[in-house]
Amino acid sequence: MREALETIFYHQQLNHIVIIDQTQLPNRLEYKTLTTAEEVWTAINRLEVRGAPLIGITAAYGLAMCARRVSEQGGEDIFLQVARLRKYLESARPTAVNLKNALDEMEGSIRTGTAPEEVCRRLEKKAAELHRRDCAIGEGIAYSGAPLLKDGSSVMTICNAGFLATANLYGTALAPVYKAEEEGRHIHVYALETRPVLQGARLTTFELTSRGVNTSMITDGMAGWLMATHHIDAVLTGCDRVAKNGDFVNKIGTYGLAVLAKVHHIPFYVCLPSTTIDFEAENSDSFVIEFREDSEVYSMWYKEPMVAKGTKILNPSFDCSPARLVTGYITERGIIQPPFYKEMFE
Amino acid sequence: MREALETIFYHQQLNHIVIIDQTQLPNRLEYKTLTTAEEVWTAINRLEVRGAPLIGITAAYGLAMCARRVSEQGGEDIFLQVARLRKYLESARPTAVNLKNALDEMEGSIRTGTAPEEVCRRLEKKAAELHRRDCAIGEGIAYSGAPLLKDGSSVMTICNAGFLATANLYGTALAPVYKAEEEGRHIHVYALETRPVLQGARLTTFELTSRGVNTSMITDGMAGWLMATHHIDAVLTGCDRVAKNGDFVNKIGTYGLAVLAKVHHIPFYVCLPSTTIDFEAENSDSFVIEFREDSEVYSMWYKEPMVAKGTKILNPSFDCSPARLVTGYITERGIIQPPFYKEMFE
Repeated sequence: MREALETIFYHQQLNHIVIIDQTQLPNRLEYKTLTTAEEVWTAINRLEVRGAPLIGITAAYGLAMCARRVSEQGGEDIFLQVARLRKYLESARPTAVNLKNALDEMEGSIRTGTAPEEVCRRLEKKAAELHRRDCAIGEGIAYSGAPLLKDGSSVMTICNAGFLATANLYGTALAPVYKAEEEGRHIHVYALETRPVLQGARLTTFELTSRGVNTSMITDGMAGWLMATHHIDAVLTGCDRVAKNGDFVNKIGTYGLAVLAKVHHIPFYVCLPSTTIDFEAENSDSFVIEFREDSEVYSMWYKEPMVAKGTKILNPSFDCSPARLVTGYITERGIIQPPFYKEMFE
Repeated sequence: MREALETIFYHQQLNHIVIIDQTQLPNRLEYKTLTTAEEVWTAINRLEVRGAPLIGITAAYGLAMCARRVSEQGGEDIFLQVARLRKYLESARPTAVNLKNALDEMEGSIRTGTAPEEVCRRLEKKAAELHRRDCAIGEGIAYSGAPLLKDGSSVMTICNAGFLATANLYGTALAPVYKAEEEGRHIHVYALETRPVLQGARLTTFELTSRGVNTSMITDGMAGWLMATHHIDAVLTGCDRVAKNGDFVNKIGTYGLAVLAKVHHIPFYVCLPSTTIDFEAENSDSFVIEFREDSEVYSMWYKEPMVAKGTKILNPSFDCSPARLVTGYITERGIIQPPFYKEMFE
């Protein structure tokens, strides 16, 4: 397997952050250096970095980097400056829970009245700690899931839940694939292009081929045909939220894929950090599905919008799948089964 | 319901053909006048007219029109000229069986040695007859299927199997919808955009909204979510070929849609002229699926190709669905069930 790409790198001596500008994928691998709060905000806001874990780590390093810069300039109380920076960075994607959580942990690591140098040191330490935790999760999911894959296995995946969505070298849904490849087994991955925003076409095919994994792409509507005509060993997907009973939310199209997998007797695995489990939710009833702009569906075409005037567009970004369609939940704590209780992860 | 658009019109006195240039849809409704064999050939070859029935009728009128022109110029034997024209028109889309069949019928209607005026008259008569037959089929499917739809019914459809694919005002899969609307019942149609070539987005939403039918569009991956969260009364699709046992071939994505419909207990109807039944085929085993160019999948995007280099593309244009997923076959002879025998349609 080829050398891995790092989605984010913090250089402590130069006090800057290097990211892959994911808006340029799949056609150009461009790195970008971030040195100011504005640049970090823009990178998150314009989806140059995306994927819940990666957004969190970018914001954490961003806060540490900016605190160091303002402390060097002296002036106002460092604690107040950090509070202001944090609020600013959080506004880059207001609905991203992971962004808020990471910044909460960062802010929680410092105390008012502490000397500026100590504040900076603690923020850097906490950001590195969050990053290490993300790496441990990726590796944990990889170890949990890899034994499911034999040499020559074929898997299907939707959207992008690979290393590009995280700050580690494995990701979530693709972690078992990369681990199996590391262990010398060759896996064939079928990526769904994932309309409307094409995360599969743009990101998943890029990251898999960058690591030398045998990758094929189909349109979303070809999934049933592929299952009926090819041998598929498993479907691996990420997820955005899981209820205690195992119901889960993921990219639109996941539910249909899970139904098709069930009908074709193909094991369907959800890959997730155990932190994705929502212990407040008994099932998916309370999950609210986000609808996004109509234009996402009809305006990405080469010539002009591709839909007749007067047509209503439905554009749910996610869907809910019931636990009964899931063979197992691959986490950093092993492959687990619902119901999930907080105590299982303490 | 609004006035219907005619996909093709032959003006006998002016001896020209008027078509809708379907490559301009959904953004522009442009009519085009065809007066020469080259123009007819180009219209078929460049998909300005498409859909098996419409291609056949266009070629039939094209042959009649051109025969009249060459007979006015005198010269070579009219029968030989017609044979040459026929060969030329057939080459516009060599694999379209409907094109060949229509031209066979046209040529079969004339005899060598007949006076030029009589040859022209017979060709015009035969073209008009084929057109009337297409109209009768569309109306027949409409009458057969409309009783299934109540006021307020919601249906899903894939690809384009509406009037734009035929030379009549009903089409195939959408025929029951238009008839129900004519009878004063309002139907809500959910069209799948139908990747990779977007016939749903480009053609189906256009023709439905042009007739004032309540139309919504989803991406192909949203079909499962829609069935699980909305009340859908039926799925209506066209088909390209049906075996004696009811197995059928249609646009890629149809099989997955049929499985999802079954799982959600939604009736799934295939709409077809009975001439689409292949009495040579016991089941779908002998059906060969056409694969098309990779670039169809990754090159239609606004900026640049959307897939990483080194990714294999699978691009089957059609898929096979087994008869057990089909609730009924809506034909001009009523709603029928397999097995199908030739004798049933004589």
